[in-house]
Amino acid sequence: MADQEASFDEMRELLAGMPGPDEAACEKTRAREAELTKPTGALGRLEALSEWFATWQGRYPPQLERARVAVFVANHGVAARDVSAFPATVTAQMVENFQASGAAINQLCLLQDADLRVYEMALDHPTKDFTQAPAMTEAESARAMAYGMMAVEDGIDALCLGEMGIGNTTSAAAICCALFGGDAADWVGAGTGVNGEALQRKTMAVTEAIELHRGAFDDPFEVLRHVGGNELSAIAGAILAARIARVPVLLDGYACTAAAAVLHSADSTALDHCIVGHLSAEPGHRRLVGALGQTPVLDLGMRLGEGSGAAVALGVLRAAISCHTGMATFAQAQVDGPVG
Amino acid sequence: MADQEASFDEMRELLAGMPGPDEAACEKTRAREAELTKPTGALGRLEALSEWFATWQGRYPPQLERARVAVFVANHGVAARDVSAFPATVTAQMVENFQASGAAINQLCLLQDADLRVYEMALDHPTKDFTQAPAMTEAESARAMAYGMMAVEDGIDALCLGEMGIGNTTSAAAICCALFGGDAADWVGAGTGVNGEALQRKTMAVTEAIELHRGAFDDPFEVLRHVGGNELSAIAGAILAARIARVPVLLDGYACTAAAAVLHSADSTALDHCIVGHLSAEPGHRRLVGALGQTPVLDLGMRLGEGSGAAVALGVLRAAISCHTGMATFAQAQVDGPVG
Repeated sequence: MADQEASFDEMRELLAGMPGPDEAACEKTRAREAELTKPTGALGRLEALSEWFATWQGRYPPQLERARVAVFVANHGVAARDVSAFPATVTAQMVENFQASGAAINQLCLLQDADLRVYEMALDHPTKDFTQAPAMTEAESARAMAYGMMAVEDGIDALCLGEMGIGNTTSAAAICCALFGGDAADWVGAGTGVNGEALQRKTMAVTEAIELHRGAFDDPFEVLRHVGGNELSAIAGAILAARIARVPVLLDGYACTAAAAVLHSADSTALDHCIVGHLSAEPGHRRLVGALGQTPVLDLGMRLGEGSGAAVALGVLRAAISCHTGMATFAQAQVDGPVG
Repeated sequence: MADQEASFDEMRELLAGMPGPDEAACEKTRAREAELTKPTGALGRLEALSEWFATWQGRYPPQLERARVAVFVANHGVAARDVSAFPATVTAQMVENFQASGAAINQLCLLQDADLRVYEMALDHPTKDFTQAPAMTEAESARAMAYGMMAVEDGIDALCLGEMGIGNTTSAAAICCALFGGDAADWVGAGTGVNGEALQRKTMAVTEAIELHRGAFDDPFEVLRHVGGNELSAIAGAILAARIARVPVLLDGYACTAAAAVLHSADSTALDHCIVGHLSAEPGHRRLVGALGQTPVLDLGMRLGEGSGAAVALGVLRAAISCHTGMATFAQAQVDGPVG
């Protein structure tokens, strides 16, 4: 997509035309669950996951063979404000670590039999420091969204989304504050591990950004470009593309969910094909998933990003689909049903 | 082990001689975690699981290749009191379902690459109805414990424990009430799905059992034989054998954890090598894990038994060990550490 073509209007059109739930697949899943050799509802969230997965994959039986983990990586101008525990050089170094299979997400993808794709987004060209100017132009943000859409290729059964980018929990906090209100302090947390003065700098950066860009917050896409980033725009694009391609999505932690929230603010049904895989230890995430009406699958105190929480949740989703598609029915197994 | 030889005194001796934590393995795990390419503590519970696993496996690096899921199956005399939503015939039918790979645990073991062993315990000879008499003699209960110990064979790296037995959440509730006090209603729940009059019958059965056997509750092993069952005794034995063999254990839901609680009441350190894999939707389980000081790894609303919650948690444990043993250090990956 050429630079001059990329616009938020295209994204709004896609959002307006996105498919809804497949009620037939949902109903078939529910009916089958009732026949499997277990007390009704005894698999709890696993049953709900199967139903959600079939509904948004739009087929029955649902299939979970090819899972992809897409990690978008970018640099943020606001990192110059010393808002992170790590220097911005770490973003590019972590890409090399991903390529050398040394990061947490590499181990998790190997374990979960997921295809890991790392999308490096012009690390030498960070966004502008959003305490001084909009982080991105509309064309830049829309182009990043379009880039993210490419992660959804034919044949993928499920998509886990993640990110890496020094400074991006500052961006996530600004997005949340712009979309949902409250004070900067409600949305700012330790990120990779800031405290004391660094945490104050981080909160101040968000406060300043909110003051500076307040006039643009009526439009969620404008929020994305003013205080977001390349990887966060790409995640929003990937979510939209996944909806269109009927690929259910597992979201990761705070930065990833903040990117998703942009779409939710634009259309409250836009994330119905997404589930938050893991509740981050970053405190703003709890508030954010509450605002989105999401219940994360896992709560393991993780706060790493890279799609790591989503990748662990993929194991639970695989458990759900394995049980749903592999279990015998009461009739098949000749097991007596409930008394009376 | 011949019938006349089996006694609780043997079990008490084993309990008295069980090994403690391997502090060196623990310390090595902690030191390595601090060097891996992630912010300190960013893998949350996964880091704690790695540390626990190495500590109780007693070696560094910890190894998680061969995982076993052991499911003990037995019948309960108290089932004659119509305390379950399902008839007692289902116990034997589910064994056939396990053998035909039709149950939830079969799918989960396949997914998690775990070796499933189902131990059928004289289904034609249920325990006595404990509202009328002790469920078992000491020899019967001790023999069942010894039988359970056989599940711990050489070369197993981790053990998930589970059970199946119509009526056994009634037994679990009676064990908990006997060990921890409170009313029967504090510990009785829907099990496979009882409500209304059936739930009242279940609560009444526990109340009567507690009244009848109250004099025996000073000794946790006597609790086990008076209101427990064959599969619950076997689980207690397997836990003890795993400790001795340095095999970390993932416990499943309510019935499994109630069996484990017998050992905890006998020695408060007896479950240090065990983690509760999943918080059951059975309400008594929350109270029970609280009494044991346990924090379940997962909370997915499951209430199936069969070791299913432990098997899903095995996936999280595998994630932890994969990250711990597979990730690069900051030095290896040449990634900059925190600023300042």
